[in-house]
Amino acid sequence: MKALQILQTRVFVTATACKSPIVCNGLKRTLSTFRSLTAQDRSVFDSMIEHVTDDPQVLSQRNTEWTKHYQGNAKLVLQPETPEQISEILTYCQNERLAVVPQGGQTGLVGGGVATAGAEVILSLDRLNQIVAMDETTGILQCQAGCILQAVQTYAEERNYLVPIDLGAKGTCQIGGNLSTNAGGQYYYRYGSLAGNVLGLQVVLANGRILDLNYSRPSLKDNTGYKLHQLFLGAEGTLGVITAVALQCATYPTSQQTALLACETYDQVLQVLKLAKKHLSEILGALEFMDQIVVRLLLNKVSRIHLVNEDDGDAHPYYLLVETHGSNIEHDQAKMENFITAALQEGLIINGFTAPNESARQQMWTIRESANPSFTAIAYGYKYDVSVPVVEWDDFITDLRQHLTQTLPSDTMWVQGNWGHILDGNIHWNLAIPGRHTLDPRVLEQVEQPLIQRVLERKGSISAEHGLGQSKNKFLPLVHSEATLQTMRELKQMWDPNGILNPGKVLPPTTS
Amino acid sequence: MKALQILQTRVFVTATACKSPIVCNGLKRTLSTFRSLTAQDRSVFDSMIEHVTDDPQVLSQRNTEWTKHYQGNAKLVLQPETPEQISEILTYCQNERLAVVPQGGQTGLVGGGVATAGAEVILSLDRLNQIVAMDETTGILQCQAGCILQAVQTYAEERNYLVPIDLGAKGTCQIGGNLSTNAGGQYYYRYGSLAGNVLGLQVVLANGRILDLNYSRPSLKDNTGYKLHQLFLGAEGTLGVITAVALQCATYPTSQQTALLACETYDQVLQVLKLAKKHLSEILGALEFMDQIVVRLLLNKVSRIHLVNEDDGDAHPYYLLVETHGSNIEHDQAKMENFITAALQEGLIINGFTAPNESARQQMWTIRESANPSFTAIAYGYKYDVSVPVVEWDDFITDLRQHLTQTLPSDTMWVQGNWGHILDGNIHWNLAIPGRHTLDPRVLEQVEQPLIQRVLERKGSISAEHGLGQSKNKFLPLVHSEATLQTMRELKQMWDPNGILNPGKVLPPTTS
Repeated sequence: MKALQILQTRVFVTATACKSPIVCNGLKRTLSTFRSLTAQDRSVFDSMIEHVTDDPQVLSQRNTEWTKHYQGNAKLVLQPETPEQISEILTYCQNERLAVVPQGGQTGLVGGGVATAGAEVILSLDRLNQIVAMDETTGILQCQAGCILQAVQTYAEERNYLVPIDLGAKGTCQIGGNLSTNAGGQYYYRYGSLAGNVLGLQVVLANGRILDLNYSRPSLKDNTGYKLHQLFLGAEGTLGVITAVALQCATYPTSQQTALLACETYDQVLQVLKLAKKHLSEILGALEFMDQIVVRLLLNKVSRIHLVNEDDGDAHPYYLLVETHGSNIEHDQAKMENFITAALQEGLIINGFTAPNESARQQMWTIRESANPSFTAIAYGYKYDVSVPVVEWDDFITDLRQHLTQTLPSDTMWVQGNWGHILDGNIHWNLAIPGRHTLDPRVLEQVEQPLIQRVLERKGSISAEHGLGQSKNKFLPLVHSEATLQTMRELKQMWDPNGILNPGKVLPPTTS
Repeated sequence: MKALQILQTRVFVTATACKSPIVCNGLKRTLSTFRSLTAQDRSVFDSMIEHVTDDPQVLSQRNTEWTKHYQGNAKLVLQPETPEQISEILTYCQNERLAVVPQGGQTGLVGGGVATAGAEVILSLDRLNQIVAMDETTGILQCQAGCILQAVQTYAEERNYLVPIDLGAKGTCQIGGNLSTNAGGQYYYRYGSLAGNVLGLQVVLANGRILDLNYSRPSLKDNTGYKLHQLFLGAEGTLGVITAVALQCATYPTSQQTALLACETYDQVLQVLKLAKKHLSEILGALEFMDQIVVRLLLNKVSRIHLVNEDDGDAHPYYLLVETHGSNIEHDQAKMENFITAALQEGLIINGFTAPNESARQQMWTIRESANPSFTAIAYGYKYDVSVPVVEWDDFITDLRQHLTQTLPSDTMWVQGNWGHILDGNIHWNLAIPGRHTLDPRVLEQVEQPLIQRVLERKGSISAEHGLGQSKNKFLPLVHSEATLQTMRELKQMWDPNGILNPGKVLPPTTS
């Protein structure tokens, strides 16, 4: 297969069929159509666990991604209550060639939790929802995978600790899903990656084997063999099902200073970024970027006071939301003041506000968090979560806009805006054709391949924090060598010989 | 095999033989004696690379661990210059069943780089020693595995970045070895683990396959498939050979404040730790613990001024070296002052000094870094690097001392002292019988098994930062379930079917 050929198709809404002899999950096999569910399977599951349902309403909700981009056709939802039950289910499904889709809070964006054709069993983690313990000396928290992120955050906060991940979907997403998609979020720069903060996992492999990978005995420093637990972070449930986690939490910051700044040029943005690293350094908690197009969409929805150019009432070209997380209010306020003073003196910002209180701080975050819904409201969203070296963001954005100008029909009105976590290089690129609420394949053709190519030319990552799911897995041959892909396939094959676990996700589809 | 049986033997100095049908690296196979080197093999290696030697002096040095605890019997040293050459070597050795020991700077403490019997080829990384690049905007550094850690640190520091690992052996150890042993060190708490900071690796698998695992395209946030690179951190070269790394460096701290404090009771130590986390919080860079026994050994070697009780000239019961890494001298000094004032007001410290200048700071670190050599100087060291929950350190120490009092012959004089990275729970436990410069198996019997048991009872880790090597691998069945060990063996088997890569390390030996 030529690399570029795979860029020419994208399957939305309709699920991909997994027919013999084509191959799911990138594993070549000849007998691998999954078996369809029977009444006999249903009885077996009923004998294993209490909560089994094929209620059409439940299935409809479970089969639809909230973005409506992906639609599955699973026939049964299982809600086990223990890892042992999950082991029993997976052992049976492995032997019987029944494909299984693990499902958390259903807040994903890449179809990772939506069944592809052939996958008729949904394995819900909802009932593994116990916060087990927190060591208040070390901040190590142990909880089950089905816990809602926000519940875990609250539990930790009550003990003066901060869960090192935070994202918009926190009220609904489950921590097992956060781990399985290797979620990043806005605090990644300050508190580090899940790779560093996850000290241990309990998982059930696709072959039914239950593994306690330092979950019940977590240590900050541990060197007792291969770091198997790392393989399940970002594996989107294709290797095994995460059932519990031991997570290192950070000391809760007692001081949070927040400011919203506007810049005229992207070079100023880069200079402000440099100044923030210098003056705010160890307390730099978040630095969120928004461009003019995004903010224009917000002007009717949020307080305009912090946003507009007084002369013409328009949005400024670039915005930065800066937040510190520290332990000493006086010091943190002084650092923020030094930072903003330096930025003003160097002529790097054209407008700027600090939040004098928590309510003002919340208002600034509301602006930032309104970016996504405001964009989504106007049309179907061509949305890409990618990493691009920060020095090249403006060039990347401009280059793609030029490409769209040249290639989209001249009578098509389109809106292209960007926000992102600029400290991490993680940009959220968005295109909408106002009023068009469904995918237009002709637009997609001018967006997806050119964007992926430009990310790769700049040595970025085609998937920063949303995962691959069934959306970006087909592009992996452009990212990794065949040797690396083959090594990933071998790993999958070893633990999931029949490829039953979340087929059609992560690994690129191949034809035999 | 019963778990406890494996605690009854420990092989030092003499290399373990790998004879059929016993099994190396925990892999069951029947035909697995490694082949001995022949003149023909030598010619093959000569045709592959320029630097091949069997010089007896070189071999003697390469076969001996600096601690003299481990002695190998390799017959040939290969010094390839490229990953492609390593691939050629490993492919040949895999096919020919020639066992290979990858070797870095030879500063390990668990025999990980020393050949076991049957392993006759040393693969040195010395000649892969190029610092490739550093992105000065992001702090991402790319270098080859054979670079000396200190050279990399200097290179980064010149660009205002700090390499997130530091340890005593930095002038000799190689970064590939640091990664392969998953080295921790004193700055782990502040800058996080290698799991978080290593963004990509170039590796050559034991089967000769070269993998670029995000090495040439590192992003802070990347979700493009299974995190294979994590498997090589701490694998001690048993799965593949790390040839290059992309490492996230931290902003270099422009302010370092250091203090040496003494406490009367361990409860005070715990209270000081709590105060340090509160007052120093985000700038807390290191918090090093030493006990009275260790400091007594230092009294003739370093300036006594900061150490002794003025009344009797003796060392205090406990010492803490506290260091901050921050960006604002004025703020950091104020935070340190607040911290020490609070500790004094609460009666938690009985003596304390802050370092007024860099020379005084260095002097404090010299005290801390003299602990290990001072202990080593007096006798053969029974040394254990373990993680124990911090609240239990004193109990753990006391408990083991009581055990030694009860079980060692009453006419044996022994010295047991401890130092460690208390923020991480990483304690270095040391026993010496003054004047005895060789291992006494009767002493070992009263030390090793009781210590390991007490670590596990307290849910600690039997290996914190030194690795397993050929020293602690036999204890893994006490740490992990058979299911986990079997999963580790399967991984090894997949990539190294003949078990040629660093046999006898990491995985526990098993008998067929």
